[in-house]
Amino acid sequence: MSDRPPFVSFLSDYGRTDEFVGVCHAVMVDLVPDLRIVDITHDVPAFDVRAGGLALVRAVQYLPEGVVLAVVDPGVGTQRRCIAVSVDDSFLVGPDNGVLAPAVAMLGGSSEVVALENPDYQLPAPGPTFAGRDIMAPAAAHLANGVPLHELGPRVEPASLAPGLVPLPNDHEDGHIVAEVLWVDRFGNCQLNVGPEQLHERGVEPGGFIGIQIGDEQRRTRWVHAFADAKPAELVVLTDSYGMCALALDRSSAAFLLKARPGTPVEIHFPEQR
Amino acid sequence: MSDRPPFVSFLSDYGRTDEFVGVCHAVMVDLVPDLRIVDITHDVPAFDVRAGGLALVRAVQYLPEGVVLAVVDPGVGTQRRCIAVSVDDSFLVGPDNGVLAPAVAMLGGSSEVVALENPDYQLPAPGPTFAGRDIMAPAAAHLANGVPLHELGPRVEPASLAPGLVPLPNDHEDGHIVAEVLWVDRFGNCQLNVGPEQLHERGVEPGGFIGIQIGDEQRRTRWVHAFADAKPAELVVLTDSYGMCALALDRSSAAFLLKARPGTPVEIHFPEQR
Amino acid sequence: MSDRPPFVSFLSDYGRTDEFVGVCHAVMVDLVPDLRIVDITHDVPAFDVRAGGLALVRAVQYLPEGVVLAVVDPGVGTQRRCIAVSVDDSFLVGPDNGVLAPAVAMLGGSSEVVALENPDYQLPAPGPTFAGRDIMAPAAAHLANGVPLHELGPRVEPASLAPGLVPLPNDHEDGHIVAEVLWVDRFGNCQLNVGPEQLHERGVEPGGFIGIQIGDEQRRTRWVHAFADAKPAELVVLTDSYGMCALALDRSSAAFLLKARPGTPVEIHFPEQR
Repeated sequence: MSDRPPFVSFLSDYGRTDEFVGVCHAVMVDLVPDLRIVDITHDVPAFDVRAGGLALVRAVQYLPEGVVLAVVDPGVGTQRRCIAVSVDDSFLVGPDNGVLAPAVAMLGGSSEVVALENPDYQLPAPGPTFAGRDIMAPAAAHLANGVPLHELGPRVEPASLAPGLVPLPNDHEDGHIVAEVLWVDRFGNCQLNVGPEQLHERGVEPGGFIGIQIGDEQRRTRWVHAFADAKPAELVVLTDSYGMCALALDRSSAAFLLKARPGTPVEIHFPEQR
Repeated sequence: MSDRPPFVSFLSDYGRTDEFVGVCHAVMVDLVPDLRIVDITHDVPAFDVRAGGLALVRAVQYLPEGVVLAVVDPGVGTQRRCIAVSVDDSFLVGPDNGVLAPAVAMLGGSSEVVALENPDYQLPAPGPTFAGRDIMAPAAAHLANGVPLHELGPRVEPASLAPGLVPLPNDHEDGHIVAEVLWVDRFGNCQLNVGPEQLHERGVEPGGFIGIQIGDEQRRTRWVHAFADAKPAELVVLTDSYGMCALALDRSSAAFLLKARPGTPVEIHFPEQR
Repeated sequence: MSDRPPFVSFLSDYGRTDEFVGVCHAVMVDLVPDLRIVDITHDVPAFDVRAGGLALVRAVQYLPEGVVLAVVDPGVGTQRRCIAVSVDDSFLVGPDNGVLAPAVAMLGGSSEVVALENPDYQLPAPGPTFAGRDIMAPAAAHLANGVPLHELGPRVEPASLAPGLVPLPNDHEDGHIVAEVLWVDRFGNCQLNVGPEQLHERGVEPGGFIGIQIGDEQRRTRWVHAFADAKPAELVVLTDSYGMCALALDRSSAAFLLKARPGTPVEIHFPEQR
């Protein structure tokens, strides 16, 4: 399609209260007037690289072909690099602190990486503290507009990049799993770092029960198909819209009930063990 | 204008913190790259079908011709249908739970309705819990792109749709009106389900006074033209920007003063009755 | 570039919870379907003309050529004028209450001003309380679309406009400066109304120390290059991304530490004075 506009999909921890997001939009459309920008979210908790990386990996398979710009950058102004990564026909731009890593891995790994050091593709900066505006947003816009990756700066060894921080569940030798909460969404659903196939492998089928332990509290939960299959106030586990297991209540917040937050450890026990 | 882009106007209770809205945008522009999306609001209170329907009916007359996508869907994953409704040259897409009904009624009623059951126009879903992304956003994009309504699924009898929930005021036999707060806006103005013509009919003119009772508290309010006509801390009633009566303070929150929320009952008493 | 789309950059205190912003977008794209809108921010504190003017002046140099729409309008419905200002090839639209003034001054001053009084370029309004939707958004869209400024209403004397309210620091005769906090950003950084040249003039160089007094509390702060140069919990001063001095902590909130808000007075003392 020759008239397909260029796309940048944009995620950050800038929030919406300040004008940071708006200024990055302005910088990009000023460089590339027909650019289209998809705002993934800008309410990643401030400085939370892990939460940003997880939000990006949940979204990335749905994003339009083009450039991903992900700015969660507690090291702004330090020597940490800003990078652009090519994966197939797409590019990802962000700080080299692991925020891009889970998405790059899901897309099949980087084929080339550069450090964003060519000042010809940066804005002149009055200060060192807004690399999103001055370095990364311009790079994303230029890449979307067809500037070759290697123009933006020197090649970087992919193996030297900061790794992502997606926690894997631990299989305990007595058969239970030590999982954790990856994400609490607006509705209070608690996504775990466990997929339904791991429940299947341990002999649980939909409709069956598993045990959950958070801190000292133990609960029995039923594996259901959808929120509405839960009885009132019944804690259930279901396969969420990303294919992961989530703890949920119908029309209420499982996170509030469980006092759970991202990173909260969750032990999963199976019937034959109890 | 042959080069007018297709439009989707999008309202939801997804909030902006998670990436739900961004992913729905991504899904739509991936299907229809020249699509333009107007975000009406995404901060409808979670699961609040009435508030979503009211926000939509306030906005609908201003929306560009095209498709309306309204996702407030406490029944996600249940047997409730997802529907698309044609009204004149526009379409409305959402769950069949009444969220579309006030807007459809204001636009003159539906001419045709289908259930969104054709999997060719859906995304393959890893789980049953994100029908906005997997069913409704794709349907909205396809309709905006010119896919005929009947392609999306079987026809549904309009009379079988869930009704909207817009409360009507009650005229009490002694002459007072039992109204309620429809909406509290950011500035604390309390829109009522009463229009200025209902004050006129009872002999009140602009500049005149009416009595308001909320719970046990009675107050006298003056009917003014604009916020700035109120004296400091004076509670007034005015015709708001939607043509409805609203309780207001100048540069302060009437809702805070009155402890009023959407749904709060408000008795309106008229001079000759007191 | 003949196919550059028209742009409106939009700032307001409408928030994102109500549908106000969405409706203004809808009104503008309905008038000018190929219009592109950059949302600067809509979370200016309600009625805070100074904060809106400061956010606009921080953003304005980055905005795409076109029209700026800035709606922070505590006087809605009063006799205050709505205006459009031309500056070079750009236009700024807003209420005549000073919200535009700092940006107009930064851009070099207005060449022409009109009052938005021509009803042909307004929406018919059901009430007097939503001038953003009914008067200012339509004006911005029409200007972006090429309607001549003088079509929108009668010319206004630029000298008659409400002034902006950007506070200047006071140089005290004993050599210290009485500054104030202009802005607290999401990360808690406190931008002051003082530039680094004013520190230079008093003999302080990067790496050196200055004294800060807020209320009764005195603190010594080091002038550093970037957040990461601060030791843990060390309050520093740096040149922020707008070229102004800001009080900051690395990965933590200086505003929380200092109990500082926009408008908080900050005395700056220099080594030779102490």
